[in-house]
Amino acid sequence: MTAKRIRVDAKRLTDFSTKALQKVGVSEEDAQLTARILVATDLRGVDTHGVINLSRYIRGGIRLGNINVNPKPKIFNQAPSTATMDGDQGLGFVIGHRAMIEAMHRAEKTGAGFIAVRNSTHFGAAAYYAMMALEHDMIGIAVTNTPAAVAPPGSTKPAVGTNPLAVAAPAGKKPPFVLDMATSVVAGVKLEIARRDGDSIPEGWAIDKEGKPLTDPTKVLYRGGEGSMLPLGGTPKLGGYKGFGLGVLVDILCGVLSGSSAGIIWSNTPGIRGNMFCHFFGALRIDSFLPVENFKKSMDEMIEAFEALPTLPGVKKIRAAGGYKAEIIKDREANGIPLRVDVAQDLQELAKELGIECDL
Amino acid sequence: MTAKRIRVDAKRLTDFSTKALQKVGVSEEDAQLTARILVATDLRGVDTHGVINLSRYIRGGIRLGNINVNPKPKIFNQAPSTATMDGDQGLGFVIGHRAMIEAMHRAEKTGAGFIAVRNSTHFGAAAYYAMMALEHDMIGIAVTNTPAAVAPPGSTKPAVGTNPLAVAAPAGKKPPFVLDMATSVVAGVKLEIARRDGDSIPEGWAIDKEGKPLTDPTKVLYRGGEGSMLPLGGTPKLGGYKGFGLGVLVDILCGVLSGSSAGIIWSNTPGIRGNMFCHFFGALRIDSFLPVENFKKSMDEMIEAFEALPTLPGVKKIRAAGGYKAEIIKDREANGIPLRVDVAQDLQELAKELGIECDL
Repeated sequence: MTAKRIRVDAKRLTDFSTKALQKVGVSEEDAQLTARILVATDLRGVDTHGVINLSRYIRGGIRLGNINVNPKPKIFNQAPSTATMDGDQGLGFVIGHRAMIEAMHRAEKTGAGFIAVRNSTHFGAAAYYAMMALEHDMIGIAVTNTPAAVAPPGSTKPAVGTNPLAVAAPAGKKPPFVLDMATSVVAGVKLEIARRDGDSIPEGWAIDKEGKPLTDPTKVLYRGGEGSMLPLGGTPKLGGYKGFGLGVLVDILCGVLSGSSAGIIWSNTPGIRGNMFCHFFGALRIDSFLPVENFKKSMDEMIEAFEALPTLPGVKKIRAAGGYKAEIIKDREANGIPLRVDVAQDLQELAKELGIECDL
Repeated sequence: MTAKRIRVDAKRLTDFSTKALQKVGVSEEDAQLTARILVATDLRGVDTHGVINLSRYIRGGIRLGNINVNPKPKIFNQAPSTATMDGDQGLGFVIGHRAMIEAMHRAEKTGAGFIAVRNSTHFGAAAYYAMMALEHDMIGIAVTNTPAAVAPPGSTKPAVGTNPLAVAAPAGKKPPFVLDMATSVVAGVKLEIARRDGDSIPEGWAIDKEGKPLTDPTKVLYRGGEGSMLPLGGTPKLGGYKGFGLGVLVDILCGVLSGSSAGIIWSNTPGIRGNMFCHFFGALRIDSFLPVENFKKSMDEMIEAFEALPTLPGVKKIRAAGGYKAEIIKDREANGIPLRVDVAQDLQELAKELGIECDL
């Protein structure tokens, strides 16, 4: 069953989210930034990583003391192109935004910049931070670890997170390339949505304790069940080792390289939540490799070559990653964001709890 | 059918490969380097990317004029952390080795170094170049594009290569993390080997012109058939868009960023071979993020956590990527490389053609 939706104006949603965050102690600047990132994510059609999670950040995060509303992030081990950052348990959005700017500052000077971040919290959609690089004619990279949810091939115990990675690269006339993918078969929130909607999940997304396919999302560990999600590729024969390898790579870049052991603790203690997210941000300045106009022309040609490919029945056009987002944004900016009714209700309840208005 | 094998001493194989390459005009230094990389790849158990391809480099590459035995690679657009390189159509091994050293030089100074390479040729296994970073306490990255062989989800025409990416990170007591994966379900050479052995391939590796599963490797485009390989993830529901996205990312980093249009031309003209490979190399200096001993200790802890996971029946131990290679190397160094009999015969024939001895 697909949930019913109502169209909600992006500006109103941003204003409400800002007010809600300010009400629990977040500064105006940080609240505006966080709200902007959440709603930008909904505008791009990534309904799993936008305002759907606002009440979780406020109730489970800030109100339970798992998120520090007044963080003082610190930077260590600075080199011309690299650094680590301690996020002081701040809102992942605020910490992620700051860290990506640091990475771009370094790329501005040397051509490449990388920041590994420890002690942060959930930062929403990785794509947002990678896309910050686009207007600076850089390639942007954003990676984060998440709690253990994915079993390696050959085991049935979760040992790595869904550990998404995002890369954005600008094009010319064409929309930018924006890849944002969990290194599991699907993102964890897709199981949560199936559970909310009472849907089963397809075979190949998750397994039970004996390694057999699980199609009941309520039984998967990610959110309290007994199963595990599968790494991208699924079975060993179809490349599950690769998805697992990419998930471990994310834990290395985020957890190990930032000086945190979060990934490892999560591996050993499935189900731990809270303030243990680590991230990794990168920026490559395109004109330190070749003239920007050459890069963009070449990107356009590649994307046009994909669009000219023959398609299977029912498929309109082949797009590069993120290529169809422009149309979604256009629709949602004009007609509002189609918010799930249960999400809209959740925001109404949150407003009541906080004693603020919710006029969406 | 699995091919019969004979054990061959690594040193003899290296000496023979060196002599064979010198005989067709490669300098002693470059021939030794190439032979060392090829045999190191066989020693690690990656039989698909070692001396099995030597005669192809010599017959199809050097002798047909597709590989320049005396290249003068040039570096452009140098920034403190980045550059592009024109490989002057040299042996991919020689060009790749040179470019990875350039990336590490930059990382030595700034913390991060990246080189995009155009106009190179096949460089063997990407892992070798990524692993060059290990002894310098760096994280190494090596990526290459390859001829179009993989169809995007929704199409049946190959548009990206199997485009592998490799990342290596050192550990302490434990073997290093070495991920080296095609962004397709499997590497192209696996289909070639199935064809040589008269084996069928599993459903999920390739499709025909109507999008139906292909199990006959001779019918897949990669080597002259009519089908396409599938991106990692396979079907859209199981993440095929992610494998395709990763494949395009590789084309962006290698082809677009290096100033070549090879990836795009390959997209439009499946089957083109030769001197159009582009690569991308990167190095991150670990101590520009945190003390190296902390990094290695944390890597060991993570790997030990994987090894302690419960396993399914028939699975001995969960390993991180590359974790089982040390045992293969030990065996092959002691007992020789188990060369396929058809490969050994091919090398004998090559020796005859070149008028050199082949005493393996």
